Amino acid sequence: MDKLTIVKVGGKIVEEPTNLKQLLADFSKIKGQKILVHGGGRSATALASKLGIDSQLVNGRRVTDIEMLKVVTMVYGGLVNKQIVAGLQAIGENALGLTGADLNYMRSEKRPVREVDYGYVGDVKEVNASILAELISKGIVPVLAPLTHDKEGNLLNTNADTIASEAAKALAEYFEVTLMYCFEKKGVLMDENDDESVIKILNPQLFEKYLFEKIINAGMIPKLENSFEALKSGVKRVIITRADLIHTEGGTTVLL
Amino acid sequence: MDKLTIVKVGGKIVEEPTNLKQLLADFSKIKGQKILVHGGGRSATALASKLGIDSQLVNGRRVTDIEMLKVVTMVYGGLVNKQIVAGLQAIGENALGLTGADLNYMRSEKRPVREVDYGYVGDVKEVNASILAELISKGIVPVLAPLTHDKEGNLLNTNADTIASEAAKALAEYFEVTLMYCFEKKGVLMDENDDESVIKILNPQLFEKYLFEKIINAGMIPKLENSFEALKSGVKRVIITRADLIHTEGGTTVLL
Repeated sequence: MDKLTIVKVGGKIVEEPTNLKQLLADFSKIKGQKILVHGGGRSATALASKLGIDSQLVNGRRVTDIEMLKVVTMVYGGLVNKQIVAGLQAIGENALGLTGADLNYMRSEKRPVREVDYGYVGDVKEVNASILAELISKGIVPVLAPLTHDKEGNLLNTNADTIASEAAKALAEYFEVTLMYCFEKKGVLMDENDDESVIKILNPQLFEKYLFEKIINAGMIPKLENSFEALKSGVKRVIITRADLIHTEGGTTVLL
Repeated sequence: MDKLTIVKVGGKIVEEPTNLKQLLADFSKIKGQKILVHGGGRSATALASKLGIDSQLVNGRRVTDIEMLKVVTMVYGGLVNKQIVAGLQAIGENALGLTGADLNYMRSEKRPVREVDYGYVGDVKEVNASILAELISKGIVPVLAPLTHDKEGNLLNTNADTIASEAAKALAEYFEVTLMYCFEKKGVLMDENDDESVIKILNPQLFEKYLFEKIINAGMIPKLENSFEALKSGVKRVIITRADLIHTEGGTTVLL
């Protein structure tokens, strides 16, 4: 099986030109086939603010009304995605920007209203992995924006972490998949005040142990739970690392 | 040779939801393989205005400074393109939105400054027709935004008519290409005050004759000259028609 690395990077890195250029250079050094998944929340908030649209976050998730949907479609699907694609092409990576609507590669359904009405937010229902696999096998580098569609004509806002893990799980049938989440630290830390205290390897037993010992920061728990879920669905390894280390052996490797 | 129809539609039609829905339904009725090329100038002007950015037009072309480039990247590459893609997917067309940067399918160079500095506007230099042909042959419907790139990391604003004619010329090697321009009239008119006076067929001899007799409206001359140029480069026919007639036999057919 060919190796495929799916790298998810957040807003700060892809939204500032110098950072982005460095990131793309590092990303390009990753061997084998690859996918880049990006956020763009800061730019979306900034544009919304200029347009007089309030950004409302509930539990860290953006509430997406019809005006905010237009904003994220412009920022995620247009500005951020196309700047990444153009930047990758400049360094010889044959990038192709995609939302879930493009090639119908990821279909979602509008999240049902329970305590919170998130608006035009999509929960992923179906990933057309074969079409992605075919592109990747030709050396194309998909650049995935955090947008899906319901196949009824509506685009839906979908968290970039979710896009990355859903793509990873679906592609595990075709590739040996490494899913890499970038965040601001070098990895999961033993001591949150010591940036060098990176836990090299985490498996479910160590995770339980560190949880019990209260070593793992509460903010990391959902990310790690999602990682274990991806691993159970066939993803080979999940790496949590800092964006400038994606082409190195650094970070925390999460395994079953 | 398979038949390919390339339809270029302007802003008004793709920027208003009801019009867009009808257009996509009509587009879907066109037999054989197809490409949709869209504008979006009105939305770009509206967004720029909300953001306090002046839209400057010289000879009908938008001057694109760095702020305006962001606006058109958002509007053309994001909002308009992705709404079309989602709309086509909803009616069973496997659409894929592309800027010139995606798959490096269309490379341009920043227009040299002569009398006017158009800013980030690209003149097309290279069309990677084989990659488009491969997609089309698989039943994928490319949706082309009026943006190209210089392969040095910069997106460039490029007129949608130009995108359509450059794609048509390059694809003439692979398909029997019909290039269709939509505008507000039913076709080229014998009498500009009579909407029914459509000239069914125009060839170079008739064009010269009508020019000499001052029958053809001055505004149509560049469009027709571009049409003849496309035909000389191998495009089979150019049709100038109204958007609601794209799936019919109406309009003016331009032939050599």
